[in-house]
Amino acid sequence: MNSIRVGIVGATGYTALETARLLLDHPCAEVVVATSRNDAGKPLAEIHPSLTGRLDLEITELDISKLCAKCDVVLCCLPHGASAETVKQLVEGGTRVIDFSADFRLSSLETYEKWYGVKHPWPQRVGSVVYGMPEFFAEEIRSADVVANPGCYPTSAILPLAPLLEASLIEPDDIIVDSKSGVSGAGRTAKVATLYCETNESIAAYAVGSHRHQPEIDDLVQRIGGKPIESIFTPHLTPMDRGILSTIYVRSEHDAEELMQCWKQRYSGSAFVHPVQHLPATKFVSGTNHVQMTARNAGSRRVLVCAIDNLAKGASGAAIQNLNVMFGQPENLGLS
Amino acid sequence: MNSIRVGIVGATGYTALETARLLLDHPCAEVVVATSRNDAGKPLAEIHPSLTGRLDLEITELDISKLCAKCDVVLCCLPHGASAETVKQLVEGGTRVIDFSADFRLSSLETYEKWYGVKHPWPQRVGSVVYGMPEFFAEEIRSADVVANPGCYPTSAILPLAPLLEASLIEPDDIIVDSKSGVSGAGRTAKVATLYCETNESIAAYAVGSHRHQPEIDDLVQRIGGKPIESIFTPHLTPMDRGILSTIYVRSEHDAEELMQCWKQRYSGSAFVHPVQHLPATKFVSGTNHVQMTARNAGSRRVLVCAIDNLAKGASGAAIQNLNVMFGQPENLGLS
Amino acid sequence: MNSIRVGIVGATGYTALETARLLLDHPCAEVVVATSRNDAGKPLAEIHPSLTGRLDLEITELDISKLCAKCDVVLCCLPHGASAETVKQLVEGGTRVIDFSADFRLSSLETYEKWYGVKHPWPQRVGSVVYGMPEFFAEEIRSADVVANPGCYPTSAILPLAPLLEASLIEPDDIIVDSKSGVSGAGRTAKVATLYCETNESIAAYAVGSHRHQPEIDDLVQRIGGKPIESIFTPHLTPMDRGILSTIYVRSEHDAEELMQCWKQRYSGSAFVHPVQHLPATKFVSGTNHVQMTARNAGSRRVLVCAIDNLAKGASGAAIQNLNVMFGQPENLGLS
Amino acid sequence: MNSIRVGIVGATGYTALETARLLLDHPCAEVVVATSRNDAGKPLAEIHPSLTGRLDLEITELDISKLCAKCDVVLCCLPHGASAETVKQLVEGGTRVIDFSADFRLSSLETYEKWYGVKHPWPQRVGSVVYGMPEFFAEEIRSADVVANPGCYPTSAILPLAPLLEASLIEPDDIIVDSKSGVSGAGRTAKVATLYCETNESIAAYAVGSHRHQPEIDDLVQRIGGKPIESIFTPHLTPMDRGILSTIYVRSEHDAEELMQCWKQRYSGSAFVHPVQHLPATKFVSGTNHVQMTARNAGSRRVLVCAIDNLAKGASGAAIQNLNVMFGQPENLGLS
Repeated sequence: MNSIRVGIVGATGYTALETARLLLDHPCAEVVVATSRNDAGKPLAEIHPSLTGRLDLEITELDISKLCAKCDVVLCCLPHGASAETVKQLVEGGTRVIDFSADFRLSSLETYEKWYGVKHPWPQRVGSVVYGMPEFFAEEIRSADVVANPGCYPTSAILPLAPLLEASLIEPDDIIVDSKSGVSGAGRTAKVATLYCETNESIAAYAVGSHRHQPEIDDLVQRIGGKPIESIFTPHLTPMDRGILSTIYVRSEHDAEELMQCWKQRYSGSAFVHPVQHLPATKFVSGTNHVQMTARNAGSRRVLVCAIDNLAKGASGAAIQNLNVMFGQPENLGLS
Repeated sequence: MNSIRVGIVGATGYTALETARLLLDHPCAEVVVATSRNDAGKPLAEIHPSLTGRLDLEITELDISKLCAKCDVVLCCLPHGASAETVKQLVEGGTRVIDFSADFRLSSLETYEKWYGVKHPWPQRVGSVVYGMPEFFAEEIRSADVVANPGCYPTSAILPLAPLLEASLIEPDDIIVDSKSGVSGAGRTAKVATLYCETNESIAAYAVGSHRHQPEIDDLVQRIGGKPIESIFTPHLTPMDRGILSTIYVRSEHDAEELMQCWKQRYSGSAFVHPVQHLPATKFVSGTNHVQMTARNAGSRRVLVCAIDNLAKGASGAAIQNLNVMFGQPENLGLS
Repeated sequence: MNSIRVGIVGATGYTALETARLLLDHPCAEVVVATSRNDAGKPLAEIHPSLTGRLDLEITELDISKLCAKCDVVLCCLPHGASAETVKQLVEGGTRVIDFSADFRLSSLETYEKWYGVKHPWPQRVGSVVYGMPEFFAEEIRSADVVANPGCYPTSAILPLAPLLEASLIEPDDIIVDSKSGVSGAGRTAKVATLYCETNESIAAYAVGSHRHQPEIDDLVQRIGGKPIESIFTPHLTPMDRGILSTIYVRSEHDAEELMQCWKQRYSGSAFVHPVQHLPATKFVSGTNHVQMTARNAGSRRVLVCAIDNLAKGASGAAIQNLNVMFGQPENLGLS
Repeated sequence: MNSIRVGIVGATGYTALETARLLLDHPCAEVVVATSRNDAGKPLAEIHPSLTGRLDLEITELDISKLCAKCDVVLCCLPHGASAETVKQLVEGGTRVIDFSADFRLSSLETYEKWYGVKHPWPQRVGSVVYGMPEFFAEEIRSADVVANPGCYPTSAILPLAPLLEASLIEPDDIIVDSKSGVSGAGRTAKVATLYCETNESIAAYAVGSHRHQPEIDDLVQRIGGKPIESIFTPHLTPMDRGILSTIYVRSEHDAEELMQCWKQRYSGSAFVHPVQHLPATKFVSGTNHVQMTARNAGSRRVLVCAIDNLAKGASGAAIQNLNVMFGQPENLGLS
């Protein structure tokens, strides 16, 4: 087949770099446009020196018609709010889009506007954009004009929780998700809080009881599992570049082994999701689109542990997996 | 007063080094003996080069009668089992002892032998050794011959939980402790699992549902709080040298502010325990004996977050705090 | 073409894992045998959990005839001394070999035996094995039965130094190589010195004036550059998993720009070696086979700075680059 | 004696925090004023949460007359240029000052204005302010109205180099200083370049041939050693919070042991400078005012390795050492 021509909008952040990096290994997709408001005119490798000699591309201004002309698919790495606006124009211009922002992930406009505190620029599509998790929505992704690329924390919670709820193996009303993320999740903006000396040699919880990924977890687990849940979600900033480990506490009348069996069945055809006997570490999936998860008995609870790479399966890897599905390729093409 | 003469048994590990380091700042206590089976005859600063020019002491063989003659108090940093044996001899020899091991922490011999898998060498004293947490047991510590220095994880769970249970503000039967520790907690033994490249850039849970600190948490919270609890406890290995952050999920009819009030009252006289409005990071207490804790509302739960330094308040700092109490000094003498 | 069948001998270390990881992206080479004395019978993914679901292979005993039958090429990751013995048997059995050890890197048997302190098991071949740096020796590598895979530090010094000496742009008798390496260079053996808490948050020089990579640097720079050199080499252990940065001080009558020009010409056809204007960081080449180098004027000196990934271009990446050359493929096949 | 009342101007950075932290252990000095333009009115512990419960002080506006009234000595942690202006006013107001900036370190106004690119606000005092290194200038520090607190990198180079040059043991015209610093040296300003994910897992050289600490090294080594030198100086950003390791290449007709002897004599009365047999790591001096240095033979060179903590001996520790000398105390009072 012809190479899939990929555009990246918002090319200076970590997810854009990770997307570019991963696509270097892809046999039939390549980045042909990269845009950024602030750095147009510069070589992409000047912003991301790790691309030196590997991807020769000049950053351009965001130009919808050029993107639509040059790209088969655009990966939109803009902040929420700004993203929906651009996605709308790109779709209306005839290009397919994978949106990294949260703008189209939730099924309820009201929930979106409450948690994100902005008027949604394209409310008509809220609730009718497929959630980009091919493990559950491959069919819809195949023909989608827009795909809402999942949040990083939600990915690490939905993948273990949804099948168990779907199979009625866990109680829906008592779920605690304690997540630990590498610092890249905080983005590449200059802030004192994510300076090296602030986050190194330290771990801390943040946004306790108020993180925007909690409604996303609840929404999706409910959509897939068929029962309303309201999870408790606590994210932590961990002194490492990348990786998310979610330790999830659930109630179940079934023991850990039965939960594992459910996963094994549900993910038997998955290239990426691996129920494992060992306790997963984030390092075991670092730089990859793979997911490792296990279950353990602990007193009256079951403890689920799930490791992903926040930049890969939690963002750019998932986007390429979605891209593969959208263009009729095996979901793991170019994603070893 | 005369300087308190301190002996350290098992001088090559991280807690021994931390004890020696902290005592350099103490105005009236000094290390006069340091023993180690493997390194007797070497300068202590050869094993711990950070002591070069700061503490001039030669490591000696473990000799009970010499220790008893030369020391007012011995800090025993041996592994469990081995420790109780030595503690017994030291006490019988007339020296006061602070035991870093778990040998005298639990109130039940049966629980000890079940979780630690060894016959206890001095079963007569199990249940009658004071737990070295001056925030609750200062009176007994003052006159104790042996003090059981608390475990690191338990310290980070007992300090926030015990007063809340004591005041009947939380439900005793649904407590989840999700703890993240720096790697020094794993000790200074050569193991592949704690090599730099195994633990760096990675976080992982371990001993899920089976860590020995869980019965210690339950035992002490119950002793102080007056009601039996059975917590779920999950420790995590975090890529940092030191620090423990415990994120604790409890049920309560009271909101976070009321839990904070309870702490403020309970710890109003404490030099080290600080209920804070901000979310504590382990870095905020690194290298110190201080404790920061806060409470947050999260859906139907309350989330308690407590940060300590595992080597200081979780081990050596607590030992010096105990030493101060044992010898009639202010608990924070030499511990800024 | 048919897939190139690769065997890995000594499969439990970091270079073996890195080789396996990199080959997952290779379109026409795959690991078919992995041996280890201690872990035969176990799945390779049990030793390296990051291979779970990605490479399904059981570790076997080292069996020369099986390796020769099943493999087109064997990558030998054994310690020096032991390696030469095995290489000899593999070559005699008819398999081509890439040797990760130092056994065949030096041109002089005497130098080898002096620096490595062992009798060489196959002295006849010392001096007649090609040094696996395709940037200089591609022709010989193409048809080689054995390739001596370069050392990590030497790679970071030879690539910048050799062309400059060859072009008589720098003085041969005053070269200082100050190198900083990530901890993976120290291997995966349980040692106190490379425990997380020993190396984290610390940088130190080691083996000052006595590291075995110094004669390797001198030997190769001389072989390529045509003039004898005797460098001063100081390695440093740096708190990071991977990467080497070499800061090299040379004397030259030519300014930095001229040195850059020389590199640009010499490496104009290279897929991996990039003279750059910016100051390279090890992160810019992390996980890749790429090399970034620059030159700066500093008083009476020129300062060369070269960054590689010690596990990739410094070991496994170079091996795959060699493998590509040996089997008539483009040198960067599968190495994005 | 009465407690020495200390003011800190510019209280929000890392050196201010380190000063406050170290003074907590000082028996007769305490921080009584802390000023900051941006954060006046806030508790100091809000900016530096590690001071919670340990130092209860509100940040105030910079008010010269109040500072002069309330403080026996002011530690000025402002940027160069701005600092000299404030120092002038404080001195004229009658307070003694320790200046953390570079404004009074160099002996030549011309060199200062060339390297720092600003007009000096108090040119009359350039060249007549004592350099705050009590190892060489204790007598002048004792009675000084202003002390120029040394730069971090210069400290790690001057301490090993100056005595050797003074004793004519090394050649003055061929000195290379290759220094590796933790990230705290870059300050606490929000910049992309020092975000966690930019500097973690990476080492890089910066300001090669153009760092402002090079003229400071040369100036001081010459002042103490009595011969002009022009060193080559390369700083590196290392993935750790704190610490500087300087690896220094010199020419000498004397072997390493003789250089060590010279140091041992020169520093025999020093509380902090320790010539050591082992290779110093930055961790060995982390958090302390101590200095470890060693010498090794390497071919035709001698390699000096010196480790300091950039925030302690490289800034705040040195300031307290200076303060002790200024107020007639033992130089190591409160500095274990």
